[in-house]
Amino acid sequence: MRLATILSGGKPALAAYRGADLIDLAKAGPGLPGDILAFIAGGDAARATIAKALDVAPPSAVLDPERATFLPVVPRPGKIICVGLNYADHSAESGFKQPDYPTLFGRFATSLIGHKAPLIRPNLSDQLDYEGEIAAVIGRRGKHVPKAKALDHVAGYAVFNEGSVRDYQFKAPQWTVGKNFDGTGAFGPALVTADELPPGARGLRLTTRLNGETVQSASTDDMVFDVASLISIISEAITLEPGDVIVTGTPAGVGVARKPQLFMKPGDVCEVEVEGIGLLVNPIAQEAAERAAA
Amino acid sequence: MRLATILSGGKPALAAYRGADLIDLAKAGPGLPGDILAFIAGGDAARATIAKALDVAPPSAVLDPERATFLPVVPRPGKIICVGLNYADHSAESGFKQPDYPTLFGRFATSLIGHKAPLIRPNLSDQLDYEGEIAAVIGRRGKHVPKAKALDHVAGYAVFNEGSVRDYQFKAPQWTVGKNFDGTGAFGPALVTADELPPGARGLRLTTRLNGETVQSASTDDMVFDVASLISIISEAITLEPGDVIVTGTPAGVGVARKPQLFMKPGDVCEVEVEGIGLLVNPIAQEAAERAAA
Repeated sequence: MRLATILSGGKPALAAYRGADLIDLAKAGPGLPGDILAFIAGGDAARATIAKALDVAPPSAVLDPERATFLPVVPRPGKIICVGLNYADHSAESGFKQPDYPTLFGRFATSLIGHKAPLIRPNLSDQLDYEGEIAAVIGRRGKHVPKAKALDHVAGYAVFNEGSVRDYQFKAPQWTVGKNFDGTGAFGPALVTADELPPGARGLRLTTRLNGETVQSASTDDMVFDVASLISIISEAITLEPGDVIVTGTPAGVGVARKPQLFMKPGDVCEVEVEGIGLLVNPIAQEAAERAAA
Repeated sequence: MRLATILSGGKPALAAYRGADLIDLAKAGPGLPGDILAFIAGGDAARATIAKALDVAPPSAVLDPERATFLPVVPRPGKIICVGLNYADHSAESGFKQPDYPTLFGRFATSLIGHKAPLIRPNLSDQLDYEGEIAAVIGRRGKHVPKAKALDHVAGYAVFNEGSVRDYQFKAPQWTVGKNFDGTGAFGPALVTADELPPGARGLRLTTRLNGETVQSASTDDMVFDVASLISIISEAITLEPGDVIVTGTPAGVGVARKPQLFMKPGDVCEVEVEGIGLLVNPIAQEAAERAAA
């Protein structure tokens, strides 16, 4: 099943794909989960209910995905744990020795945008860079989860563009600010439930394109720490909760490591596509002067 | 005004201090804010309503703070932005060159505990260290907030013990995991509204004691980036929202930098006291084997 968070009548709503159509579940009938967290909490029963509703959805609930307004697929995750240096070729291009423990940093929900929303180049910097990644969304609470059971804790996967403001990322020893500018983390379009994908979303082709040109291409098999390992290792320290997001890292090809460097600018379009998960498209826009004025 | 989040009849509730007593607002009358975010959103009107309720609170609403169960004063902040290397003497003892931009990292709400709850030494490490700090709680949404107006965005201040698992903090280039073990971030007992303190909580004595012995002592004037600067600089990149928390950094004296090193162990008691804000007391307990098993 493929779920999205959309705007419906000005409010966030859950939607599900039926083939090429998107069904607005707020208009598809009573008793359906109202948001992605309710979907996750509802488990198999919620999926069955939605599956039935998709079969009988009235025409008024059917949307053309090209005309829908997408929000981040999980709009306000309890935590967003990003993994740095998780593809050896990217660690090498970044000048870091490959750590033997995952390199984790946090994103805050205020940095998130949905599919088709603009990635915002801030007025403070012209170094807005792309990072194509896959995100694993946690479906079940866990602490000290053994690796063999870790994938049972994944509700599904989505595409993520972990936009990074490079000069700010390296102003201090921690990368946080460069990873958290408003409007730099694109997340969607859909959560694809884990049953539709290979275990751990392994062996999928991840491609990032800037203005149609391929700038990153890798297999998710190239991760240093795979999804099961990440869940197991992180949960040795941190309780993972439903709706938490693990953003699993980017392969080589980022703009800051190129010669000459390649940053995103207003008018560009960045696409991240992951085989079986989806295509996340975002234009780039300059931060509005109004927002800069407070 | 001084507000705390407590357990009342097994549920989180807002409480306010009336002198030495704590008034359980869930039992003090109708129409009172139900949690700290509602208090913040309610502004002056909420404060006036609470002030009236405190005057007439029935005996059933009056608690001895010694018998109350405290939760983190903001239980689930939208974001917790911690500032590292924000006292020059601590940067020096840590072996870092003092950065000229704030060193930011994220904590997740799953790491938080309240006043008197145990700080948890994990089974994975014996390097649980203390960090006495003050936390500024955001009261008003803002982006690109000028420094001169930054303090208008603070609802109040609380004491924070930013417990750190040192070996995990330095396993990879980012400190996140060592700063996010479950049960390592103590936050409370109370939010003290900004009007009760000097602007920016400046000039206050911050003291950390381990088993009664002073291990950190500094003035909040010694911060490299003061609260107004932090809000202004962070909000150049990141929208700050009501209930967000900025944890402002720790002075010299942490255990990892001592010779010999001094870490917290089960049976210890750690206290962080900030003049005018309060006293945060936490015993140290070993992670339960049960938790490790699941």
